[in-house]
Amino acid sequence: MRVQGQSYRSVWLEGSVVRMIDQRLLPHEFAILNCPTSCDTAQAIKAMAVRGAGAIGVAAGFGMAQAALGAPDASFAASIEDAARMFRATRPTARDLFYAIERLETAIRQASDSATARRQAVETATRLADENAAAGERIGLVGEPLLREGARVMTQCNAGWLAFADWGSALSPIYQAHRLGKRPFVYVPETRPRGQGAKLTAWELSEEGVPHTLIADTACGSFFQRGEVDCVIVGADRIAANGDVANKIGTYTLALLARHHHVPFYVAAPRSTFDLAT
Amino acid sequence: MRVQGQSYRSVWLEGSVVRMIDQRLLPHEFAILNCPTSCDTAQAIKAMAVRGAGAIGVAAGFGMAQAALGAPDASFAASIEDAARMFRATRPTARDLFYAIERLETAIRQASDSATARRQAVETATRLADENAAAGERIGLVGEPLLREGARVMTQCNAGWLAFADWGSALSPIYQAHRLGKRPFVYVPETRPRGQGAKLTAWELSEEGVPHTLIADTACGSFFQRGEVDCVIVGADRIAANGDVANKIGTYTLALLARHHHVPFYVAAPRSTFDLAT
Repeated sequence: MRVQGQSYRSVWLEGSVVRMIDQRLLPHEFAILNCPTSCDTAQAIKAMAVRGAGAIGVAAGFGMAQAALGAPDASFAASIEDAARMFRATRPTARDLFYAIERLETAIRQASDSATARRQAVETATRLADENAAAGERIGLVGEPLLREGARVMTQCNAGWLAFADWGSALSPIYQAHRLGKRPFVYVPETRPRGQGAKLTAWELSEEGVPHTLIADTACGSFFQRGEVDCVIVGADRIAANGDVANKIGTYTLALLARHHHVPFYVAAPRSTFDLAT
Repeated sequence: MRVQGQSYRSVWLEGSVVRMIDQRLLPHEFAILNCPTSCDTAQAIKAMAVRGAGAIGVAAGFGMAQAALGAPDASFAASIEDAARMFRATRPTARDLFYAIERLETAIRQASDSATARRQAVETATRLADENAAAGERIGLVGEPLLREGARVMTQCNAGWLAFADWGSALSPIYQAHRLGKRPFVYVPETRPRGQGAKLTAWELSEEGVPHTLIADTACGSFFQRGEVDCVIVGADRIAANGDVANKIGTYTLALLARHHHVPFYVAAPRSTFDLAT
């Protein structure tokens, strides 16, 4: 998406440096954080410079590629194992992190030598980021028809393009509807305690020019009560095989409010979020 | 109730000065605000130095008494009318404010001369404060048996002794249960945007030694979902003749959560809160 007229992804690889929008500084400051080593990237995930299920997965993929690039031939496999362990421990909330690590491990394991492994690691991490961005865009295309002209949408936390490589999950249909001139309107709950709604979703929507209102988390119910919410769209950290969804605190209450008021409730997520391991 | 070993009410009259705990400074500073004139008292209500339906009513009662004390004989009735208009405009959310103003107007109107009116105004305002404190204490005595040993209670905003002359409404049964050794536990939602739960209820409970946890407003639903809430007790700004309750934003969501999870939901309020005018 565009910030101050320039195209950005939330996180990307340049040579052997992982670069990302430092989400801790938003909305007051827009700055790029450079992570020259896989340890720096792991630290950035841990410290929440990057957050959001998809973006964390993409960052971990690039971090694993960095680890491959930096691993000495003599102890290549052990270095990759160490890196995987390090990234698994960063922020184990969402499924996407593990999905990315597994994809990178498989790609590296399948290579016949460490030079090939390094090349395949970079390719896989790059493909993973592209797939994540493409999934976000597709979620938008699939979800957009669900929004009527002028739809008033409530979301929770940040499941926009900052939380993915690009586009986002929950916000992607809203961006598509906005670009089609359907004038969607978004209620943005603050999402305490960390305030990702206030700090990130409101900033994203402002940058895209999507009309929205930042509301206290306590206020969600009142908008349902008055019939002023047409649908809810949220992202997900994980989706289990039985359909159970794990997402940011407050999501359960929104789901209950939606059910009571007969308001459609949509969970938007790419495949990497599905936690189908048995 | 007691603060640092001394007994306090939230607001009281000393001579012709209205004194109150400055709630804007809590929990970081405990300070008493002096209001030498009725205008100062009205300003204190407006500026939220005192808040809470009951406490606002009591403060307005004392403020009307101040107005009577300061009104010149020549324009006594007009001065009282002006004061009533001023207090009606301070914070017209709760019923208690209007109840107090009406009580004072009636007492003043019934007096045969301004000297008697001044005496009756002070007596009425004092009685109103005493009645409010006594009502809070009675709410506690009536409500305490509803709490089982070790009950986990969720509340909203601040409906404790700071919000009344003394005791409070929602917190009064909890204080009584605590004094009886029934070990109640309280979930205190922050209650954004102003944070009266975080700033006032948590402070009150700390001063009384009642075990509690401050939670983000987003977290309420999760505690219901896990079956960790035994009941909800909230206060009210107004209660209509049909039983409808107006209270701090977020109360509706708590009521819905309680209903869905078959958890008892209690509204605690003294008679002055009932908005039965037709």
